[in-house]
Amino acid sequence: MNKPTNQAEFPTPTVTTGPLAGSSRVYTSPKAAPHLKVPHREIELHPTAMEPPVRVYDCSGPYTDPNQTIDVEKGLPRTRIDWVKARGGVEEYEGRELSPLDNGGATGKYLARAFPVRHTPLRGVGSAPVTQYEFAKAGIITDEMIYAAERENLGRAQALHDAHIRHADGESFGASVPEFVTPEFVRDEIARGRAIIPANINHGELEPMVIGRNFLVKINANIGNSAVASSVEEEVDKMVWSIRWGGDTVMDLSTGKNIHNTREWILRNSPVPIGTVPIYQALEKVGGVAEDLTFDIFADTLIEQAEQGVDYFTIHAGVRLAYVPMTADRVTGIVSRGGSIMAKWCLAHHKESFLYERFDEICDIMRAYDVSFSLGDGLRPGSIADANDRAQFAELETLGELTQLAWKKGCQVMIEGPGHVPMHKIKANMDKQLETCGEAPFYTLGPLTTDIAPGYDHITSGIGAAMIGWFGCAMLCYVTPKEHLGLPDRDDVKVGVITYKIAAHAADLAKGHPAAKLRDDALSRARFEFRWEDQFNLSLDPDTARDFHDQTLPKEAHKVAHFCSMCGPKFCSMKITQEIRDEFGSARAPNTSLAAEDLDQAMAEKAEEFKAKGSQIYLNDKGETREPID
Amino acid sequence: MNKPTNQAEFPTPTVTTGPLAGSSRVYTSPKAAPHLKVPHREIELHPTAMEPPVRVYDCSGPYTDPNQTIDVEKGLPRTRIDWVKARGGVEEYEGRELSPLDNGGATGKYLARAFPVRHTPLRGVGSAPVTQYEFAKAGIITDEMIYAAERENLGRAQALHDAHIRHADGESFGASVPEFVTPEFVRDEIARGRAIIPANINHGELEPMVIGRNFLVKINANIGNSAVASSVEEEVDKMVWSIRWGGDTVMDLSTGKNIHNTREWILRNSPVPIGTVPIYQALEKVGGVAEDLTFDIFADTLIEQAEQGVDYFTIHAGVRLAYVPMTADRVTGIVSRGGSIMAKWCLAHHKESFLYERFDEICDIMRAYDVSFSLGDGLRPGSIADANDRAQFAELETLGELTQLAWKKGCQVMIEGPGHVPMHKIKANMDKQLETCGEAPFYTLGPLTTDIAPGYDHITSGIGAAMIGWFGCAMLCYVTPKEHLGLPDRDDVKVGVITYKIAAHAADLAKGHPAAKLRDDALSRARFEFRWEDQFNLSLDPDTARDFHDQTLPKEAHKVAHFCSMCGPKFCSMKITQEIRDEFGSARAPNTSLAAEDLDQAMAEKAEEFKAKGSQIYLNDKGETREPID
Repeated sequence: MNKPTNQAEFPTPTVTTGPLAGSSRVYTSPKAAPHLKVPHREIELHPTAMEPPVRVYDCSGPYTDPNQTIDVEKGLPRTRIDWVKARGGVEEYEGRELSPLDNGGATGKYLARAFPVRHTPLRGVGSAPVTQYEFAKAGIITDEMIYAAERENLGRAQALHDAHIRHADGESFGASVPEFVTPEFVRDEIARGRAIIPANINHGELEPMVIGRNFLVKINANIGNSAVASSVEEEVDKMVWSIRWGGDTVMDLSTGKNIHNTREWILRNSPVPIGTVPIYQALEKVGGVAEDLTFDIFADTLIEQAEQGVDYFTIHAGVRLAYVPMTADRVTGIVSRGGSIMAKWCLAHHKESFLYERFDEICDIMRAYDVSFSLGDGLRPGSIADANDRAQFAELETLGELTQLAWKKGCQVMIEGPGHVPMHKIKANMDKQLETCGEAPFYTLGPLTTDIAPGYDHITSGIGAAMIGWFGCAMLCYVTPKEHLGLPDRDDVKVGVITYKIAAHAADLAKGHPAAKLRDDALSRARFEFRWEDQFNLSLDPDTARDFHDQTLPKEAHKVAHFCSMCGPKFCSMKITQEIRDEFGSARAPNTSLAAEDLDQAMAEKAEEFKAKGSQIYLNDKGETREPID
Repeated sequence: MNKPTNQAEFPTPTVTTGPLAGSSRVYTSPKAAPHLKVPHREIELHPTAMEPPVRVYDCSGPYTDPNQTIDVEKGLPRTRIDWVKARGGVEEYEGRELSPLDNGGATGKYLARAFPVRHTPLRGVGSAPVTQYEFAKAGIITDEMIYAAERENLGRAQALHDAHIRHADGESFGASVPEFVTPEFVRDEIARGRAIIPANINHGELEPMVIGRNFLVKINANIGNSAVASSVEEEVDKMVWSIRWGGDTVMDLSTGKNIHNTREWILRNSPVPIGTVPIYQALEKVGGVAEDLTFDIFADTLIEQAEQGVDYFTIHAGVRLAYVPMTADRVTGIVSRGGSIMAKWCLAHHKESFLYERFDEICDIMRAYDVSFSLGDGLRPGSIADANDRAQFAELETLGELTQLAWKKGCQVMIEGPGHVPMHKIKANMDKQLETCGEAPFYTLGPLTTDIAPGYDHITSGIGAAMIGWFGCAMLCYVTPKEHLGLPDRDDVKVGVITYKIAAHAADLAKGHPAAKLRDDALSRARFEFRWEDQFNLSLDPDTARDFHDQTLPKEAHKVAHFCSMCGPKFCSMKITQEIRDEFGSARAPNTSLAAEDLDQAMAEKAEEFKAKGSQIYLNDKGETREPID
């Protein structure tokens, strides 16, 4: 089973490799676990900066490391399987038999080639800890916790010791972002339920990461084929592409045929946690007829996907029968696919949702593989008009109840959130989630702050995402420009990821994350000093920044020009400011201010000096007058 | 003078005309002034919507009206000159002699062709009211006030009477947005200094509009050639292009040669207020040497531009000598061009700024033409590190002092604001501006909420713009994707404008503007009912929305398909919701909720009905089962 069933033309996925411009992937080994190699990205600066490389968080995987051999047919190294086995409590077993239904009954040339390698699955046995939550509760620090802690710390040691850096300020709304992240801090946050490490024991390729409001705000990128468009190789490429630009996790939302095989290719090549919505595949297995769904088909699908290594499942167990009529007066009703499937099932049977009624059995499956819950917001608002209504909050209260159940069962939990919410109603979402769900991490889609800009919903939602990230949301699910209109292509995925990296970073800054501002400051210094290449390389998207610059000033010489392409040489305010600094900077100690009455004297002293230099703006690096470039 | 001085090849600017998709430009005549024809845009909906057209604010000018003849060589009709003359207090006069320096000394083929028509300028005489502020203070309601009031009201009458619409809620942070805007309300807001109508008496082509925090949030688009790139015809085209997509005002930031002639072409064809930064042209006149600037050259430039009809001037009179050293320790120093020019002048002369010292004389010029002040924030922060520092706030306090002076002189005033500000420091900017500047309208550039995304600064700043708009900012100056990197082209201008329309609208929604939600609701209903064309046409950018949809589902048939292109037919949650509504909607009065205990009964009643219909998802408009489209 699970071996190639046909030899139809199935191109090997080609993925983008190589470092980002000016960057290299580096590794550190935590003191607590020297056998771990934890990745970071370092951005090299021009020698004139006289600054060390800027270290930034890296979720791009081995693809950006030229020293690694990438073979998509083999998948990434499964290093983590050793960690899991080493701590025990798990068994290898034959695993579930692959059924043709798992790929939607596709055969012959319609069946996508299976991933070439078959790995025997693991599952938890007995009562020994299996999940990160159970280890954390037992006071045990796992390799995953050490690994995640090490990643989070980039720049913090430097920030604490670097005299240039003004201390970060911010308003954290009750978050407790530490000066330095220790493995013990990660363990404690997980034990409190305030953070998760989505890390299925079968996802050996994973580079573990932590999601919680006391850590860097994370982002998720959605990929997935649909009945209408796209292919397996496109989806693998989109996964690699989305993590290249900063996707912390990836959700495979595939529907239609080949759903099993697509997922296998993605998982075997993914260093980031993969999430799915298992009800999509379950629905395929019953021919798309929601009322034919059963718990057994659903549970079997959970096991199928858990054996593959999916790290978190969106499960819409909060869509209760009694809440469905609350949506009838909405402008846009139920907009969650999973929510509407369950609503339909409830209606058709006039029974309580089997996801809700048999939630404890679902927990048992989740626990055995350490699949994290992402409790779905099936009744999230799909329009400004429906935001924060009774249906939405009734479901959220149920998700809070289920969170407690899942924790009792040893599972990790995060909570999904909206959706479409005007700015003045965003904070109420965050506050209610924290209160209702025991501070379990919140994971929102946007929210979109207006409905009137299809084609630009990465922006309508980026606004809401930045705000809710600031207020305490732990992970932001991206929205691409194609939202509401079509399936995102590679360009859309990149724009969505970059937009959400902006939102997440803006949130980190506003929360007062101790190291977030390091990168802003480094880039701003580069901007001020006309280190164009450094400015490009420090940006979230160096290629686009460079390209935009070159559209106005294409010549290589302009990248060392001492003026901005917008203003031209005569109007370069930064150049003028450098003169001001030359006037005043040297006479002053950092962070002191001259009182107004001292200024006249200082000015008088500097007056002749300025004129003696010839009052020239256009000096080259050697202080020589040079002609403006026209 | 001012007639064509050469016959060099100068292409007549070609501009985009014709209505936006699905829209038509309509006019209403206010009761208070039946001779006025006030424009709006109406978006026609599909007959199945059974809804009236959606009326939206229109600043696109006659260009979107197919019944108007556009001749860029003649300019737009100068209707407003009659209003100005009718109320008296002004005189026609010969006007200032055009100097070759006004076009940077360009000659021969380097000199752009002058605008073909020369209009005799007007100026105020004596002590009769000239400015909107003076009329307002005198209790006189001008045509401009009536016109602006009429534009603001779109949808409000409908909103107040339409039973479908739930009342707008919101958090206005102390703003007093009225249910309905009357001319008297506009007058009162102007008299209090809380709003301005930028309307130079020489800008006869203007369609007046009001800027203030109790009105719709406005946006500004910057255009302008520079020493490095672009031409006159490109700039006229950009002006028309930017107002087509929603630019409420346009700033011409041209530098270099041909600055006078470029501006004349823009003004004669602009129905929106035009703003400039006169110090740019003054600097050109002294060969780019800041220290050679004099008050006389500056004042002469103000008169030159005022005679042309510029509606507001950015004047950096708050950059005082004593504040310059406060910027020496900044990461990015002074980033405002105007601010840095004045700082350099102050340094070179070691004297107080002539803009500050002779502010009363500047006021006299501004008043004579009713040019509004946009008091420039020359010391705005250019990086996250520099936000809300002493230099920035010291200048803001001076702007508050100058606001009082300008009001005493009868001038209209708004205040420019930052810049680069992390989210948690944005509200402090708004609060301090309101307090310091007597509630004069705030007009901010963004602010950018992080420095690390050059190439995406429309987004980093759109986040901050939406927030500060919510907090009370009256106008948002757009930022394009090229910010920090290059000069915006047409595409960049459009992306910048749409992004800022999103920010402004999100702010209106969050403030609880009584009519803002109408458009969101109309679009969301269209989305829910699969009226694809309506969804496109109601969006801020119908062309892009349609194009994105067609990339996934190109066929015309799919625009009436009852599923979204993302999900495919089986997963269409909106379709499922329609079934829920069919189940429950008819049994319920609007806005009531069934208690949980009532549900079982309701469900039991509906159960057989649902099954009797065949439990089918895929029904066409006639209720017939149809095949899913694959």
